[in-house]
Amino acid sequence: MTFPGLLATSSGLVKARLDQALIGMDDEPVIHAMRYAVQGGKCLRGFFVLESAALHGIAPANAVAAAAAIEAMHAYSLVHDDLPCMDDDDLRRGLPTVHRKWDEAVAVLAGDALQSLAFELLTDAALGPHRLALIAGMAQAAGARGMVLGQALDIAAETAASPLTLAQITRLQAGKTGALFEWSVTAGAVLAGADTAPLGRYAAAIGLAFQIADDILDVTGDATKAGKRLGKDAEAGKATFVSLLGLEGAKARATALIDEATTALAPYGARAENLTAAARFVIARDS
Amino acid sequence: MTFPGLLATSSGLVKARLDQALIGMDDEPVIHAMRYAVQGGKCLRGFFVLESAALHGIAPANAVAAAAAIEAMHAYSLVHDDLPCMDDDDLRRGLPTVHRKWDEAVAVLAGDALQSLAFELLTDAALGPHRLALIAGMAQAAGARGMVLGQALDIAAETAASPLTLAQITRLQAGKTGALFEWSVTAGAVLAGADTAPLGRYAAAIGLAFQIADDILDVTGDATKAGKRLGKDAEAGKATFVSLLGLEGAKARATALIDEATTALAPYGARAENLTAAARFVIARDS
Repeated sequence: MTFPGLLATSSGLVKARLDQALIGMDDEPVIHAMRYAVQGGKCLRGFFVLESAALHGIAPANAVAAAAAIEAMHAYSLVHDDLPCMDDDDLRRGLPTVHRKWDEAVAVLAGDALQSLAFELLTDAALGPHRLALIAGMAQAAGARGMVLGQALDIAAETAASPLTLAQITRLQAGKTGALFEWSVTAGAVLAGADTAPLGRYAAAIGLAFQIADDILDVTGDATKAGKRLGKDAEAGKATFVSLLGLEGAKARATALIDEATTALAPYGARAENLTAAARFVIARDS
Repeated sequence: MTFPGLLATSSGLVKARLDQALIGMDDEPVIHAMRYAVQGGKCLRGFFVLESAALHGIAPANAVAAAAAIEAMHAYSLVHDDLPCMDDDDLRRGLPTVHRKWDEAVAVLAGDALQSLAFELLTDAALGPHRLALIAGMAQAAGARGMVLGQALDIAAETAASPLTLAQITRLQAGKTGALFEWSVTAGAVLAGADTAPLGRYAAAIGLAFQIADDILDVTGDATKAGKRLGKDAEAGKATFVSLLGLEGAKARATALIDEATTALAPYGARAENLTAAARFVIARDS
């Protein structure tokens, strides 16, 4: 199967599990906004959960709640990140952002409830005996040592006296994107009680490559395909991997990271071919 | 010990556990805001966790992480509830609200990270073998079937064509305050793997009494003692238990609920005297 085909298959499973979790809720704007926010998107993080589970012999039915959890968590982060007091974006995944379609209060609350939903999904008994480790890992990756710290550093960078250095941007991205990426990629090993180290190395490399690719897309991409506003970092005078390394330097760094990622998969042999394809996709995508 | 004395003791334990959880985090505004947001307050929910644990023979050391978790969750809800797009409040617990002391972005992110922290605290191994049930219960109570739904209904009420009915307000409060109240009060029974039904009945009664007392305070209270703006419901023309039942009617209903709550404690006999004192405190407090 082609990689987009694999992604579509896992996305279908994840969306069905999210639909199931959101069934029977009240007919209120905040609930509609939650359903809206989890639609669309590549579902890359959910794919990583299902694929790393498969790599450890865990069937989709025993991993899909974790894949749905990470997509709920990711959706919450986008809804809050798009708020006027944060990145102030009108468009996400080709549609109006939640606070534009409803209002800011609905966006704050829908994001809050999506975070709760992520943790609720992780308590699903189908995930088996290691789910507490997944919960602890997600709480750490999402919180003030992980994603929220990265977001805070990102916002602080907008008003900083001087642009960030490469070390500072790398640290920012390790929190903002990297922590939940690593959670997704290692989830299958955690569920199996197996060694997470090789997948952790793969995750660190593709997490950074993903962000470099985002910075490249922000400069060279097509806003229609990306489904969001582009060029905003340059507009804001923010340092990015492209501004610091140059376009060619950034592309070369991303390619080197993908090599690093695929090398980290060596212990799994041919069984890791889908993760190898995912690594290539991360820097070749147009959205 | 007097009830305020009991409350101060449990508050001290809970604050120490929260301090421990927040140690070693980065020196960023969002982290300072998290520490700021968990300071002050009555710590009533944390008290309920420790007291219901004690009722089931569980030592404070094996329950305090859950008490800290509910206080982190409560603090997040206050930070977001105070935002300009929500209740737009400048004062909380006698101090400037987080978005007034820092800014809206810091308030959104600090609230988000406090929610993550609540779940992280619930994975503490000291809580023993039933902590997954606590996590699932908190996720449900905090999310779109619980607190967030209540908040959403509350905000919708502000622009509703007609004031809410008593049934509608009762439903709203069951979500907004009741769900996490019930979680706190039943936490000890959950940790012990014991029957939660008697404490559940107690919690439902005092949760509602607490909210009626809040509505009474909003009309008759002293803003300096309460540490927040009062009179805002009447100002906004919102239906409250006081506007619907009258001041005397509301007081009578709260008193009847406290009788109901103490009756529910009968199975525990004299061991529940602190919870009986807590029920009386809930309607006698001035903040």
